[in-house]
Amino acid sequence: MAEKPARPRLTRAMSRRSMLAGAAAAGVTVPVVAAGLGTAAAAPETARPARAGVTRRITVYAEEIGGGLFGYGLSPGTATVPGPILEIWEGDTLEIDLVNNTDRRLSIHPHGVDYDVDSDGSPLNASFNEPGQRRKYIWKTRAPYQKDGRWMPGSAGYWHYHDHAMGGDHGTDGLRAGLYGALVVRREGDLLPKRQYTVVFNGMTINNRVAPDIPVIEANLGERVEFIAIGHGDFFHTFHLHAHRWADNRTGMLSGPDDPTQVIDNRDLNPGDSFGFQVIAGEGVGPGVWMYHCHVQFHSDGGMAGVWLIRNADGSMPEGAQETLDRYHQHHHAMQEPQQLEQQQPGTTHEGH
Amino acid sequence: MAEKPARPRLTRAMSRRSMLAGAAAAGVTVPVVAAGLGTAAAAPETARPARAGVTRRITVYAEEIGGGLFGYGLSPGTATVPGPILEIWEGDTLEIDLVNNTDRRLSIHPHGVDYDVDSDGSPLNASFNEPGQRRKYIWKTRAPYQKDGRWMPGSAGYWHYHDHAMGGDHGTDGLRAGLYGALVVRREGDLLPKRQYTVVFNGMTINNRVAPDIPVIEANLGERVEFIAIGHGDFFHTFHLHAHRWADNRTGMLSGPDDPTQVIDNRDLNPGDSFGFQVIAGEGVGPGVWMYHCHVQFHSDGGMAGVWLIRNADGSMPEGAQETLDRYHQHHHAMQEPQQLEQQQPGTTHEGH
Amino acid sequence: MAEKPARPRLTRAMSRRSMLAGAAAAGVTVPVVAAGLGTAAAAPETARPARAGVTRRITVYAEEIGGGLFGYGLSPGTATVPGPILEIWEGDTLEIDLVNNTDRRLSIHPHGVDYDVDSDGSPLNASFNEPGQRRKYIWKTRAPYQKDGRWMPGSAGYWHYHDHAMGGDHGTDGLRAGLYGALVVRREGDLLPKRQYTVVFNGMTINNRVAPDIPVIEANLGERVEFIAIGHGDFFHTFHLHAHRWADNRTGMLSGPDDPTQVIDNRDLNPGDSFGFQVIAGEGVGPGVWMYHCHVQFHSDGGMAGVWLIRNADGSMPEGAQETLDRYHQHHHAMQEPQQLEQQQPGTTHEGH
Repeated sequence: MAEKPARPRLTRAMSRRSMLAGAAAAGVTVPVVAAGLGTAAAAPETARPARAGVTRRITVYAEEIGGGLFGYGLSPGTATVPGPILEIWEGDTLEIDLVNNTDRRLSIHPHGVDYDVDSDGSPLNASFNEPGQRRKYIWKTRAPYQKDGRWMPGSAGYWHYHDHAMGGDHGTDGLRAGLYGALVVRREGDLLPKRQYTVVFNGMTINNRVAPDIPVIEANLGERVEFIAIGHGDFFHTFHLHAHRWADNRTGMLSGPDDPTQVIDNRDLNPGDSFGFQVIAGEGVGPGVWMYHCHVQFHSDGGMAGVWLIRNADGSMPEGAQETLDRYHQHHHAMQEPQQLEQQQPGTTHEGH
Repeated sequence: MAEKPARPRLTRAMSRRSMLAGAAAAGVTVPVVAAGLGTAAAAPETARPARAGVTRRITVYAEEIGGGLFGYGLSPGTATVPGPILEIWEGDTLEIDLVNNTDRRLSIHPHGVDYDVDSDGSPLNASFNEPGQRRKYIWKTRAPYQKDGRWMPGSAGYWHYHDHAMGGDHGTDGLRAGLYGALVVRREGDLLPKRQYTVVFNGMTINNRVAPDIPVIEANLGERVEFIAIGHGDFFHTFHLHAHRWADNRTGMLSGPDDPTQVIDNRDLNPGDSFGFQVIAGEGVGPGVWMYHCHVQFHSDGGMAGVWLIRNADGSMPEGAQETLDRYHQHHHAMQEPQQLEQQQPGTTHEGH
Repeated sequence: MAEKPARPRLTRAMSRRSMLAGAAAAGVTVPVVAAGLGTAAAAPETARPARAGVTRRITVYAEEIGGGLFGYGLSPGTATVPGPILEIWEGDTLEIDLVNNTDRRLSIHPHGVDYDVDSDGSPLNASFNEPGQRRKYIWKTRAPYQKDGRWMPGSAGYWHYHDHAMGGDHGTDGLRAGLYGALVVRREGDLLPKRQYTVVFNGMTINNRVAPDIPVIEANLGERVEFIAIGHGDFFHTFHLHAHRWADNRTGMLSGPDDPTQVIDNRDLNPGDSFGFQVIAGEGVGPGVWMYHCHVQFHSDGGMAGVWLIRNADGSMPEGAQETLDRYHQHHHAMQEPQQLEQQQPGTTHEGH
């Protein structure tokens, strides 16, 4: 990869987690990002806050981070693609001071939560930051509630946030450049995962990268792991995870053994969509290296494929796993059939390794 | 918009509602369409009919309405794009006399309800109207029922109807020209909304229009409002509504506080698909102007974006709302960043205002 | 069709069924494929095995079958496109000896079930068959189970299997050539259908065929029929079935009359996705010929449309059905409007009949 231009602070913090649930009202605790090959966050030490309806305040910095990329970060100079995972409990309010350290107009627009027109993040509502500007966005949430004798939906869900103002009315330039991240609203009683990953199918990339330049994510056998999948851009996609499955509902788990929800391991992931689920890493299938990829054939062939290293329960490398990682890093070379390689035109493979 | 050719009777009746539930068996009551900026229908005054299983009879007129458009209407000279919302209760039968006042072959094909081969509306079953012809189509519905010890699905749902015979075997010309509309089958106990809107993502348009030429829809703060979303054409889409969310199920509401259904504010809306939901206008977020748009970036940038004006509860204009509407009507001008405007090529923006 | 090159052993066995549930542990019973126009399998005579957790062993043969097609079969010389429907009960293990009788590298990769890295079927895990090679793949399943106080999903579902190694890392060549099939994992208590069909939207084809060259599927009025729909390739699709509907969940049926699941008759069917459902043939709508097709207009116009013949309950032909089948077989000729035919360019219609 020596020939490639340096890409500072990219998806290193693919699952950089901002577990706001237990943070003090005026601040935020960011767990240390785990070292090593992977990008998994440390386990959250936080628990359910004693009181519901807390107001949490954070400052988010939008910055240009090289290579044509822009990102959000929780302190100056730490912006990443995707941005930090923002987590709150249903009932909480999140007040965001967005600081625009770039020379482009931009904003932060959330999905799933409540916000008034001033916090819409859209040019339509004149809700954005000019270059250099600081602006407050307020996101509120609620539990399911009754209205006219019916239960109206609450805010809990695997949502996301993104720019809605850089490039036209809909943030097309900002999204292309990486201004997006995951927003998790948990319901009282929800389980916290040991690790979590944000996987954004953006254009023909995963988190603005393509194989084999997508950082390896990892966990230990038996850990509860959370995936948050988000779609952006102009193309349709399907997210497939090998050797694990989930229920197609709010949590990915069943409400009971007779829950009729369809269980899936492949799901549409189109622009503006998001979903999430928890799985037990390697349960029933063992440790090793598992692919997650877009199942649209020319997308996966084009590099929309990442790998998940599941180590042994004690953190050691499973037999053969290093060889598999090596094959991944030689993606489009070692894994292809010889006859296919011969047919390929120069320049159609991923260079640089 | 003075330079534009006149477009008669287009989406004026975007939510033109034909609430058949309480109509006499031999006719149909069409509420007066609300005046003003918006296209919201008057509140239905109807209630659940005393008896289930009523047969209702209507006449539908297919007509050419100028500008290359064709529409369905409930009386001669009143065809619109989309056509009128047809509503019945689960258990009812709807008999439609379709009058083809055009010079093209066409039909009416429903989703979700029961019909025999003569009412299929397809050339395959020789079920269509020749130019000038009148033909009967019969749609039946039923409640969920047991079979082999299982519960089989009933007909209740947010469905749609469309031409299946103009242009080839699948109505491609008819659909492109506007021959489509919403079909709502309600279950006993379902709530009736105060307002309802049909939003059809058809090709690269919303109801065969693009921004800022999409009529503003509107409601008052706190009203129960129903969206019926339908997809048609050749492209994939995702429907996103700002500041409101719904459950991804039959009604958009939860069956209880522990219902595991995913709550969403963005959903795939691909050809032949439909879904619907009810929200409380502005609840928790306040009045103002909210966007609904395709979240595929080049589709929204291309004009697949409409606005929903939520007035104050007393019907007055919220502060700043007129300015926001003005920005919408200057779409692709005022809302864009100056540097973007400079980069644009002549002719790529929407003209005429 | 005289001008067309012969296509041996294609989708003749569209619903060729390998009901493994009652098969001996060391073998498999393949019901006789029904004769006639259709491709429906005989009714399964099998019942729930007395014990759960049985290990079943089969040999699958991957073969080239002419016309550029490759298929899977349960004995030498019987490969089909799609491959045989593989069925097991939740809790069972399926051991597959895959024999590669082709000169290309290939594998078999399942969705929904448990497998270790050796059975992944991917080049990433060096899990594939070289030409001429025999290799074992082991698929395990489980019922829903509790973990951390939650119900984790079981394996029951309408899944699928496919090549993951012919042509690059993701089996793109193998999928294009027909190396795919349905995998059904049933839960104790699930109903067995009388007939079942595999419908794979692969590229711009249905089971690698286009209208009118798609075999007619058939059933008798009132029979319980199962559709297994699978998506592959590079394009997005929507599956629409005329005059029948299903619940959008694991089984297509409701868990009770108040089940909030949306009922649909059109569903996204994108690469890697699958779903299934059971309907009662012609119930409420009568016998006749019903279309199933991709609802993307230029896909259905391009030939992604098949027909389902529902005979009378006694197996006789319904009135008018033969004429309808004749129209289908003259697809794009008899069903089109005269004015459309005149506008068509030479070569844009399907030739050869």
